[in-house]
Amino acid sequence: MVEIISVTTRGQGLYEFTEQVNRLVSRSAVKEGLCSLLIQHTSASLTIQENADPSAQHDLENWLNRLVPEGDPLYTHLSEGCDDMPAHIKAALTATTLSIPIMEGRLLLGTWQGVFCWEHRHHHQVRCIAAHIG
Amino acid sequence: MVEIISVTTRGQGLYEFTEQVNRLVSRSAVKEGLCSLLIQHTSASLTIQENADPSAQHDLENWLNRLVPEGDPLYTHLSEGCDDMPAHIKAALTATTLSIPIMEGRLLLGTWQGVFCWEHRHHHQVRCIAAHIG
Amino acid sequence: MVEIISVTTRGQGLYEFTEQVNRLVSRSAVKEGLCSLLIQHTSASLTIQENADPSAQHDLENWLNRLVPEGDPLYTHLSEGCDDMPAHIKAALTATTLSIPIMEGRLLLGTWQGVFCWEHRHHHQVRCIAAHIG
Repeated sequence: MVEIISVTTRGQGLYEFTEQVNRLVSRSAVKEGLCSLLIQHTSASLTIQENADPSAQHDLENWLNRLVPEGDPLYTHLSEGCDDMPAHIKAALTATTLSIPIMEGRLLLGTWQGVFCWEHRHHHQVRCIAAHIG
Repeated sequence: MVEIISVTTRGQGLYEFTEQVNRLVSRSAVKEGLCSLLIQHTSASLTIQENADPSAQHDLENWLNRLVPEGDPLYTHLSEGCDDMPAHIKAALTATTLSIPIMEGRLLLGTWQGVFCWEHRHHHQVRCIAAHIG
Repeated sequence: MVEIISVTTRGQGLYEFTEQVNRLVSRSAVKEGLCSLLIQHTSASLTIQENADPSAQHDLENWLNRLVPEGDPLYTHLSEGCDDMPAHIKAALTATTLSIPIMEGRLLLGTWQGVFCWEHRHHHQVRCIAAHIG
């Protein structure tokens, strides 16, 4: 089964969508298998991170913003706004695709793991994630 | 087939477990297919790296420790120890999932490639890696 | 189906090979499924990035070269040339494997996304990418 999941973002940060993926896995009726995700954008990315304490997500966001700041004189790709080139770099340093084993009809994640869309741009966006379950 | 592989770590560094994965592939009897791995933790990660010269692994470890040091005043997520927040960042910058083609019943890796668990915490740990072979 | 794709590189930079992968998908006759790629080297990597404006690829390359420069006194792995250890680090920070859903016999990428081999060494190379389509 291949479907598109939509995640609405409201500025930079991590947006968990684990339950959207688990609902898709349920609907597919696959009990044991693999769920592969691809984010169809190059200015947002995917990550599996701790979903218990929001301070971890906050620090991840701030740390990456400090490593890849806006306004770096190195950038020549400026036509799509000052948050665009940093967004491409952040996407290259994190994940565009993820593959998660499925067991007993659920994603086989660790206890504290969640699946996140990592938005790297300031404006509201609807991000599309292609999901293959098999 | 879905199974959990355990890797015991004794502090920060890279721990190769290629042969554990190849044994699982043999046991699955899959001759041509795909092996997908997910580490079920957010303070350790996965990487495919050179397994010939240990100096490469040593430099990888030291370089990443310098990029993501402990005690950074930016961190607010401090409740799980000073190696915890750097570990989450390192995990976000490296890989949580890997997908490796299988040919003739073996992982189709390059000559010098090995599959590693990258431990980012100081204490001994048992790390669980979910493997799907199909 | 498992096959090896070859990409010839002429020094550091991003080399798009999306159409080579799409031709393989066509040949496989898989209409809905998953295409998984693994680069069989540890001094080059894979990335999905914007393929419209070459300035984005240029900035990605320059940014990563600044983050991981040659001649860093931290390096002890020096036997394979001064571009080798930076290449391993860059490979660890980007992707070695990718998994891309297939729909209607084509990679289900976003409008501006391309699949690239990211060469981190100076000399000409032939890079092998193992592809599983199923």
